Amino acid sequence: VAPRNRLVCNAHVSDSLAARLATIVGTGNVFADADRRATYETDWTRRFSGPARLVARPGSTAEVAAVLGACADAGAAVVPQGGNTGLVGGSVPRGGEVVLSTLRLTSIESLDAAAGEVTVGAGLTVAALNEAAAAHGLRFGVDLASRDSATLGGMAATNAGGINVVRYGMMRAQVLGMEAALPDGGIVSRLFGVGRDNTGYDLPNLFVGSEGTLAVVSKLRLRLVPMLPQRAVVLLAFDTLGAAIETALRARREVEALTAAECFFAEGLDLVCRHAGIPAPFTGRWPYYILLEAAARTDQSMALAGAVADAPGVRDSALATDARDRTRLWAYRDRHTEAINAEGVPHKLDVAIPLARLDEFAKEVRAVVLDLSPAAQVVLFGHIAEGNLHVNILGFAPDDERPDEAVLRLVASMGGSISAEHGIGVAKARWLELTRPPADIAAMRAVKAALDPRGIMNPGVLFPRPESQVPRRE
Amino acid sequence: VAPRNRLVCNAHVSDSLAARLATIVGTGNVFADADRRATYETDWTRRFSGPARLVARPGSTAEVAAVLGACADAGAAVVPQGGNTGLVGGSVPRGGEVVLSTLRLTSIESLDAAAGEVTVGAGLTVAALNEAAAAHGLRFGVDLASRDSATLGGMAATNAGGINVVRYGMMRAQVLGMEAALPDGGIVSRLFGVGRDNTGYDLPNLFVGSEGTLAVVSKLRLRLVPMLPQRAVVLLAFDTLGAAIETALRARREVEALTAAECFFAEGLDLVCRHAGIPAPFTGRWPYYILLEAAARTDQSMALAGAVADAPGVRDSALATDARDRTRLWAYRDRHTEAINAEGVPHKLDVAIPLARLDEFAKEVRAVVLDLSPAAQVVLFGHIAEGNLHVNILGFAPDDERPDEAVLRLVASMGGSISAEHGIGVAKARWLELTRPPADIAAMRAVKAALDPRGIMNPGVLFPRPESQVPRRE
Repeated sequence: VAPRNRLVCNAHVSDSLAARLATIVGTGNVFADADRRATYETDWTRRFSGPARLVARPGSTAEVAAVLGACADAGAAVVPQGGNTGLVGGSVPRGGEVVLSTLRLTSIESLDAAAGEVTVGAGLTVAALNEAAAAHGLRFGVDLASRDSATLGGMAATNAGGINVVRYGMMRAQVLGMEAALPDGGIVSRLFGVGRDNTGYDLPNLFVGSEGTLAVVSKLRLRLVPMLPQRAVVLLAFDTLGAAIETALRARREVEALTAAECFFAEGLDLVCRHAGIPAPFTGRWPYYILLEAAARTDQSMALAGAVADAPGVRDSALATDARDRTRLWAYRDRHTEAINAEGVPHKLDVAIPLARLDEFAKEVRAVVLDLSPAAQVVLFGHIAEGNLHVNILGFAPDDERPDEAVLRLVASMGGSISAEHGIGVAKARWLELTRPPADIAAMRAVKAALDPRGIMNPGVLFPRPESQVPRRE
Repeated sequence: VAPRNRLVCNAHVSDSLAARLATIVGTGNVFADADRRATYETDWTRRFSGPARLVARPGSTAEVAAVLGACADAGAAVVPQGGNTGLVGGSVPRGGEVVLSTLRLTSIESLDAAAGEVTVGAGLTVAALNEAAAAHGLRFGVDLASRDSATLGGMAATNAGGINVVRYGMMRAQVLGMEAALPDGGIVSRLFGVGRDNTGYDLPNLFVGSEGTLAVVSKLRLRLVPMLPQRAVVLLAFDTLGAAIETALRARREVEALTAAECFFAEGLDLVCRHAGIPAPFTGRWPYYILLEAAARTDQSMALAGAVADAPGVRDSALATDARDRTRLWAYRDRHTEAINAEGVPHKLDVAIPLARLDEFAKEVRAVVLDLSPAAQVVLFGHIAEGNLHVNILGFAPDDERPDEAVLRLVASMGGSISAEHGIGVAKARWLELTRPPADIAAMRAVKAALDPRGIMNPGVLFPRPESQVPRRE
């Protein structure tokens, strides 16, 4: 796949900024040679990449702040980067920026098992946090496929979601405190983890989801949740999406232990079965499927089965309580991504639609895509309780943005969100105005200019960047 | 009690701004006569009051925005006001501002019972929302003593808390969408209620808790929660606060249906029993008490009793499952405010302390107050799971700020919050710097200046206002 960013790299291997950064983070943690830069220049999607001027790896909040201050002095643009698992190109250079990597910030401090709280460095991965928490019977409330690489700081900066949002909320709901460095070299430190705090503007909540355009998250005070040993999973088939939605919402209302409410469609299921070589879950082929999971300290199978037993429109169902059966049912949902990727390079759009219009959207989205290319394929799956669908489109060249634009326009026309959990990044910046009117964008730009007056923080992300605004090297 | 604000009123009964506002909201909804102004000029505390230039009562978001735009043009300061039930003086004029009342914004739209969501006008009260929601078996997740007057817009602007935070979170966690008017007359409209949305800065979350200094909340999309018919309450006595905290945290971990975890102390209980003329709950007098409530669709008494049955340090306990007994146990907590007020005019400070230091704080706070006046009385109660204590101090003149300052300095020295759920208002603005270092306050001021460059929004609230910055009349 061709990289999306075409700015020419004109980085100098050694420059005065590098020397100054070396005095802050140590010579071993600033580098500009192509070999060492490489892993910082391309993200998981391999769709987004670009050359870095240099990479700096600070080892503390104070070093993060000092690096930002030095870059601001030099007028050098900065791309903050965690595990580089984003899907919208927000964490890799566009051309010649300083990459500020948080990967050295992996501390785990003050784990308070009784209160269910912990302080972590921004570069810690979900998997590493879960390993430490498991010793106390706890886990982190957000889980996603990239758990071994995704860093908690990056997940806060992008307000990551995942499969357990229906139970625990998105990343925002896990953040009890934050330390962040500002582009003027200042530090906002609100780490004490007090659950109630109304002392001025909630800057941590402003930084959550700001995609590295305002500040660099360096530490987090996070909520931990209990590991719940008793799990039950049910897979249900429907012949209308409306009935599937009603059933998922009923489960959310009635099953307090609900931890996941996922959905997929017949096309995706067919793909998964073919690529994974597994049998279909039911003898009949139905158009719509939801997978519900409940977890608690006590057995949830009765509560889960009871809530959906007489739900209207259920055409078939399977309940799993032991680990093998649960894994078998989850595979139908989990293996969508690999099955889709095996078919080609998909256009992946992450959108949310008001539930009342989700059925209409699922039909319309096929129509608008097939209208562009009758041979195209649309595979939908996602998190049904929040109307969050991942729209996977096969059959277009990677650089052909017509299907992306058509889908996002449809989303906007239905009052939805053009980015439910992935963020805007560089990928969707040009479409921000589809759902954010001028007064809203003006307010966002005012906030951006207030905290980052020189525009060094992740330029090109979130707001479209006119070429004239590309930060210049000193 | 003498009003705290001493700025002289120099409002003109009729002026050109009034005429312009009348064209926006109608002549009946702009007034400057003292009789009609009176209820808008003093809040619930009666400690804060000041004269308004005039009162404007817009009837829609567009009217709110137009009122702000007209005030900005005229350089006229605006105090947004809901139910006027705040406790820190943030909703009444300091002297000559336009009061923008949201009380006409009482719409209830698009109640989606299946999804548990509703759109309301900012001026709707909690009680009115609960009345509408009850018909669908739903209620609002935040409850507080001022429920009959407190408006949802004001509660969002101040991020209100209350007794159910341990279950549902603070006001911030209820807000799914928002419409707000900006001081430049623009409107931020993010009402669609999609639960997942990562499309740029989360301006609604920035406005939550900003106390009317950035924007006026005019509409909200809110989460509703199920009415839970089965309730169990347990009151427990301890001889150490540490054991009480441990027990509350254990209940929070183990009782998923936990809806409240409140605490009070022997001095407060004595006051309540004397003023309400009710017997003490237990034969022994113990220094620390917690009240736990669990609510669900199924009986919670076993789960609640089981979780605390073998908790270390419990000296006595009472379990209530029927309505009469529940009310009887809740009275010991609920009647604190009236019992304290019957003793005199208390200084009321709302603080949060990291749980690990709460015991130390409870002892130290008495010491620092008694050090100022040996005859003073300190009554503590609050929301124990979040370390949120309401510090009530009797025995000082209302204008004597020595105890306030001593308590807040103690809070800051222990890494706590000087305002857990009440906000900063004008009451605590001078102490903001106790827990917010210069870089943090500078970032907040930058955001303020970005969105309210003329400084018309609730001046004097949140940030201390140098006299020179008092907005001038045209």
